[in-house]
Amino acid sequence: MARADGLSVSVVGATGVVGGILLEALARRRFPVGRLRAFSSGRARAVVRFRGRSYAAPAIDRAALLASDIVFLVSSDEVARRHAPALAAAGVWVIDDSSAFRMDPSVPLVIPEVNADALSPSKRLIAGPNCTVTGAAVAGHPLHRLARVRRVRVASYQAVSGAGREALRELHVQAKAATALLGSGTLLPRLPRPRADALPRPIAFNLFPQVGSFGPSGECGEEVKVRDELRKLWASPSLGVSATTVRVPVLRGHSLALWLETDRPLSAARARTLLSRAPGVRLWRDGDYPTPADAGGSDPVHVGRVRESGPGARELAMWVVSDNLLKGAALNSVQIAETLLRKGWLKRR
Amino acid sequence: MARADGLSVSVVGATGVVGGILLEALARRRFPVGRLRAFSSGRARAVVRFRGRSYAAPAIDRAALLASDIVFLVSSDEVARRHAPALAAAGVWVIDDSSAFRMDPSVPLVIPEVNADALSPSKRLIAGPNCTVTGAAVAGHPLHRLARVRRVRVASYQAVSGAGREALRELHVQAKAATALLGSGTLLPRLPRPRADALPRPIAFNLFPQVGSFGPSGECGEEVKVRDELRKLWASPSLGVSATTVRVPVLRGHSLALWLETDRPLSAARARTLLSRAPGVRLWRDGDYPTPADAGGSDPVHVGRVRESGPGARELAMWVVSDNLLKGAALNSVQIAETLLRKGWLKRR
Repeated sequence: MARADGLSVSVVGATGVVGGILLEALARRRFPVGRLRAFSSGRARAVVRFRGRSYAAPAIDRAALLASDIVFLVSSDEVARRHAPALAAAGVWVIDDSSAFRMDPSVPLVIPEVNADALSPSKRLIAGPNCTVTGAAVAGHPLHRLARVRRVRVASYQAVSGAGREALRELHVQAKAATALLGSGTLLPRLPRPRADALPRPIAFNLFPQVGSFGPSGECGEEVKVRDELRKLWASPSLGVSATTVRVPVLRGHSLALWLETDRPLSAARARTLLSRAPGVRLWRDGDYPTPADAGGSDPVHVGRVRESGPGARELAMWVVSDNLLKGAALNSVQIAETLLRKGWLKRR
Repeated sequence: MARADGLSVSVVGATGVVGGILLEALARRRFPVGRLRAFSSGRARAVVRFRGRSYAAPAIDRAALLASDIVFLVSSDEVARRHAPALAAAGVWVIDDSSAFRMDPSVPLVIPEVNADALSPSKRLIAGPNCTVTGAAVAGHPLHRLARVRRVRVASYQAVSGAGREALRELHVQAKAATALLGSGTLLPRLPRPRADALPRPIAFNLFPQVGSFGPSGECGEEVKVRDELRKLWASPSLGVSATTVRVPVLRGHSLALWLETDRPLSAARARTLLSRAPGVRLWRDGDYPTPADAGGSDPVHVGRVRESGPGARELAMWVVSDNLLKGAALNSVQIAETLLRKGWLKRR
């Protein structure tokens, strides 16, 4: 069903968890897809669905990508490195959800609500940020603009879907084995200690403070990404950022306990007013708050429990939940493409 | 099997989750129990086990409590308020695990590794702290002594057993219903949205930033307890403390992402040395870390991922896990009693 007036759109990694969500988001938001090409970067199932139709998702075909108006990469760093520069050099818009180019100074790292001004008609390769930094970047940005955030501390509660398909399977299997022991007499059964393969530790009824590998600083990869990417997104190279990133037994939705220290005083009341008007934010009323069950499958970054957490109104604490697969990945990529459309930069070639 | 040379020990709330753990801890640590009396403060099962024997746990009998050498209260604030002052006034040692008297200036709030010096032969009513503050108080104390902590930020990951028997039942039921949908095709099933009764929100495959009720400051009860009790335990009334307390789908073991800002510089290396020698602490080597599955059922406060989190070595981040039912409650009460024994203050009357 090619639409004559639509764009030629390719999705690389279409058979992955984020790939499926991206195709849904393109359809739901009526992105003007004329011709869709789906590619699988791995060995996953070879057919995907889009607007009620099935599409084969064969291995990557460079010529087909070069014939596209826009290519969404929702795959590995390696696949992005192999294809993105050549495509962009040939004039194809490339929205890359991997971490391969995020910190490349020549590549805009973009959340449209935060820094759409980083986009440029000449920079055809654009990176979307890590799924954990997104909630902090969107929720903190209006406060940063007014009161200048100098230091961010964040503890994360990250869903297993952020670790991909095999990690989700591992949670399913472990949860089934553990749950079989529940409800039969003892309230505190000794749970099995399952093998962890896809994730570094057992995850069912457990959690662990490691997302990615540890580096020499003692931080894990995700913690470094949160710092580096937040600095780039906010164009604040000296921002202090300390993160402890934790995987929790939740399917979908990353939560953050966030502290923002500001240069200028900012009351919780004023912060709430700013957040209530901020694009991409849903502010919850006091006494209520979002949970992963509320935020999973929804577009906005959900913010609640905004309160002053230090003397002199120079620190705010808040609770932030966003869907790691939507705003944390697929949705943000689509929103970048929508921004390019609105600017008139993305068009049929 | 009364031991002629043992103490007369009463346990109020013996049929509760913490009550059972307390009886196990008394037996395991060979606390010199001569005569045990168990009382139920609610409607739970009326028989408990201790050293392989069954004990009836009838309703509270004030006369029997008055005839005890020591009474462990592992029950509600209300039960503690009704009985503790009269017992202490009559010379009975009372170790109260409720929050009723923790902030009473005439009542020592004690973790033996932290402030055994707050005990006194004339103060017979002693409070044990909240299960969340315990990990922070034990892990932070050696660092506070050396470098003077001025500000604590903490995000918690709290097990459901901290909310008691009905909350655990709720997790069991919800986990069984949700897990039935896992493993059958889709990796991201839409989970049921169960009724939450014992807990404020659904907990299976979910989490929420509320432990206790919200007060006018926007903090929930647990967050206020963490601040107030940490100040009292460390005898630091001006300590800055900001907590975000979160319930997670874990059975046993509270985890903390902890930031300690210090007056004096303190390197991570020096902090690790201090922690490796600190009583009640098990320090995990770099690159490894404790999880609730490791800490559940174990006595120490587990500490890992100690790292500098700001410039000038004036802030440390760390990861702390302790068993909320043991060190967070029952074990600490037993350790207080052991301390009284060692001092020669607790004896047969």
